[in-house]
Amino acid sequence: MDHIDELLTRGVAEVLVEADLRRKLAGSRPLRLKQGFDPTKPDMHIGHAVGLRKLRKFQDLGHQVVLIVGDWTAQIGDPSGRDETRPRLTADVVRQNAETYMQQFFKVVDRDRTEVRWQSEWFGTFDLEKALNLAGRFTLAQMLAHETFRKRYEEGGKLTILELMYPMLQGYDSVMVTPDVEFGGTDQKFNNLAGRELMDQMSMVPQDILLVPLIPGTDGRKMGKTFNNTVDILMPPFEMYSKVLSMSDDVLPLYFEVLTDVPLAEVAEIRQAIAAGSANPMEFKMRLAREVVAQFHSPADAPAAEAEWIKRFREREIPEDIPEHAISAPASIVDIMVDSKLAASKSEARRLIDGGGVRVDGEKVAGYDLLLSPGKPAVVQVGRRKFVRVRGA
Amino acid sequence: MDHIDELLTRGVAEVLVEADLRRKLAGSRPLRLKQGFDPTKPDMHIGHAVGLRKLRKFQDLGHQVVLIVGDWTAQIGDPSGRDETRPRLTADVVRQNAETYMQQFFKVVDRDRTEVRWQSEWFGTFDLEKALNLAGRFTLAQMLAHETFRKRYEEGGKLTILELMYPMLQGYDSVMVTPDVEFGGTDQKFNNLAGRELMDQMSMVPQDILLVPLIPGTDGRKMGKTFNNTVDILMPPFEMYSKVLSMSDDVLPLYFEVLTDVPLAEVAEIRQAIAAGSANPMEFKMRLAREVVAQFHSPADAPAAEAEWIKRFREREIPEDIPEHAISAPASIVDIMVDSKLAASKSEARRLIDGGGVRVDGEKVAGYDLLLSPGKPAVVQVGRRKFVRVRGA
Repeated sequence: MDHIDELLTRGVAEVLVEADLRRKLAGSRPLRLKQGFDPTKPDMHIGHAVGLRKLRKFQDLGHQVVLIVGDWTAQIGDPSGRDETRPRLTADVVRQNAETYMQQFFKVVDRDRTEVRWQSEWFGTFDLEKALNLAGRFTLAQMLAHETFRKRYEEGGKLTILELMYPMLQGYDSVMVTPDVEFGGTDQKFNNLAGRELMDQMSMVPQDILLVPLIPGTDGRKMGKTFNNTVDILMPPFEMYSKVLSMSDDVLPLYFEVLTDVPLAEVAEIRQAIAAGSANPMEFKMRLAREVVAQFHSPADAPAAEAEWIKRFREREIPEDIPEHAISAPASIVDIMVDSKLAASKSEARRLIDGGGVRVDGEKVAGYDLLLSPGKPAVVQVGRRKFVRVRGA
Repeated sequence: MDHIDELLTRGVAEVLVEADLRRKLAGSRPLRLKQGFDPTKPDMHIGHAVGLRKLRKFQDLGHQVVLIVGDWTAQIGDPSGRDETRPRLTADVVRQNAETYMQQFFKVVDRDRTEVRWQSEWFGTFDLEKALNLAGRFTLAQMLAHETFRKRYEEGGKLTILELMYPMLQGYDSVMVTPDVEFGGTDQKFNNLAGRELMDQMSMVPQDILLVPLIPGTDGRKMGKTFNNTVDILMPPFEMYSKVLSMSDDVLPLYFEVLTDVPLAEVAEIRQAIAAGSANPMEFKMRLAREVVAQFHSPADAPAAEAEWIKRFREREIPEDIPEHAISAPASIVDIMVDSKLAASKSEARRLIDGGGVRVDGEKVAGYDLLLSPGKPAVVQVGRRKFVRVRGA
């Protein structure tokens, strides 16, 4: 597979207009790659990294990223895919969010080949004349071609004129920074096309558009906070490693494709092996988890996180042959420890709990008032080696 | 009929909210009467005067007019009732139009009780933040409740986001000048309601709205340049007088009601007399024409215009017994004049035409190439006394 082919297809959902972009790439001039973001929510997850990795691949070929900090559009909030008008953010919150965003952005993207531009550079002095001029360049019919807008309007949801202006403001950024190609998730297609349209109206060479897919979360559902299925870029190495391991087998090959540099032929083998059941997926997951940690932290962090995970995993392993302790009514953890000889006295039991050395089913016990009940068997562990299985009498 | 009743009904299409406006009128505080205009087309006709007369009646009770010069909205052009996006006007044209407009406005409205405010006072320093804030206060559903917008959108006409912003800009004027009541034609209801809505959103006492009817032109169709049926406020006395006389009988009673102070009881009598055919409408038309000229010029101009009209009318009267001239094919005015002995030669005929002394059916002949045809009898007149009736052979 040709290098440019892989650049334009691996982890890429759509390119508009591909022939034009290929022509631009064939030239000797470094291209300007626009990536905008709205600092509305500062937390990025590895889903966002798919696009950042793509930017980085372009940078490695000598191209230049232009990062637009959407400090104005953030105050509106991108309506794309949203059922409701967002509450507007204050300038202060936006600034803080932007800082956090960039801290994450530059874990993947090369800061030296990035030009950072804040929208306030042009929108801070934008007057009504200019705003009206912009609003006169788009028709309502064009805006209602946006599925988000059309659905919201047709289903009677609140859709303000302000929100209709979002795509044109984002599009105007392109007029200001003259990109060769704008990068975005597939949900940004409409906004990116507005930029293309505006550049065209103003007799500029219109930007091409490279859209990356929105990947599913670790459980296969849409990646997002709601489902607790994200791997966040700012997670510490061990947490990140464990979170990647928690992924369902289904998403494993896709993650390899869009989040690593593992050759595509090898990714195909992994896909096949999992489908055929000829390999233990855990082995691949651990490899992926190492790749991810190495990327967002450092190569040295990967084996360290893995070693820590293995150690903790082993610690939590329960021997098969352990003493049992029967209870006939709910009893406190302290009473159970004394009755089952895990502690010599209630005060020793409390000391052990305070010291963090007591676990129930692998989870640390945080207080004395935990009750265990006869209907729900559980394993109580003190330190590394002492176990008791609690069950109904 | 009570004085306030007549104020709120004669020449009034609708009052919103009438009870509130009556309460305001019952107080001792002079009310602020907002009248906005877009200096897009400077020519006003007597249809516009219906509203100006109403403002004047309020002024005569001690109230204050606030005239908004829509130098910003004019650049957009009111989309109300328009099938197409208007071309945008330059600031210079807008300023010139505004001057011409005010020259006409103050023929009816008392300049001493008028505060003139230009939109540029607030929109000249309006920034994007404010524009977005305004755009966030209205939903698309609200805007598409405007028949003009809805029809244009549903029928696939061009409707820009800029046009959707027109009503809010006009509405914002009200926030700036805090009127008690806004005046407008019935086609302004949507825009005026936007002002009411905005004032309400900003916790101000919302303006009431007084809408005046759009009256038909002299021929009974919609008054407008297209139909050549307007009586323009800047017409000289004689032209204005003649134009009023050209009106159809149908509109006569309405004109008396909305354009004169003739008591309503008398207007009812006129309406009845015309309906019953018991009076010659021409007598009433002459009275109306005098009233109109006196209003827009001066009381002395009215009889002068009438005297001039009578003189010219008599001049153009055609004697009953005039020579006939038969033609069997279309012939030029020059040939006909020679053949019928109205001129001694073609060159004399041409001289007479150049001198402006030749008329066909009362209309001055402008060039030599006018053709008369056998199928359409016509009276050719040279000077005051020489006539020939041309007919088919």
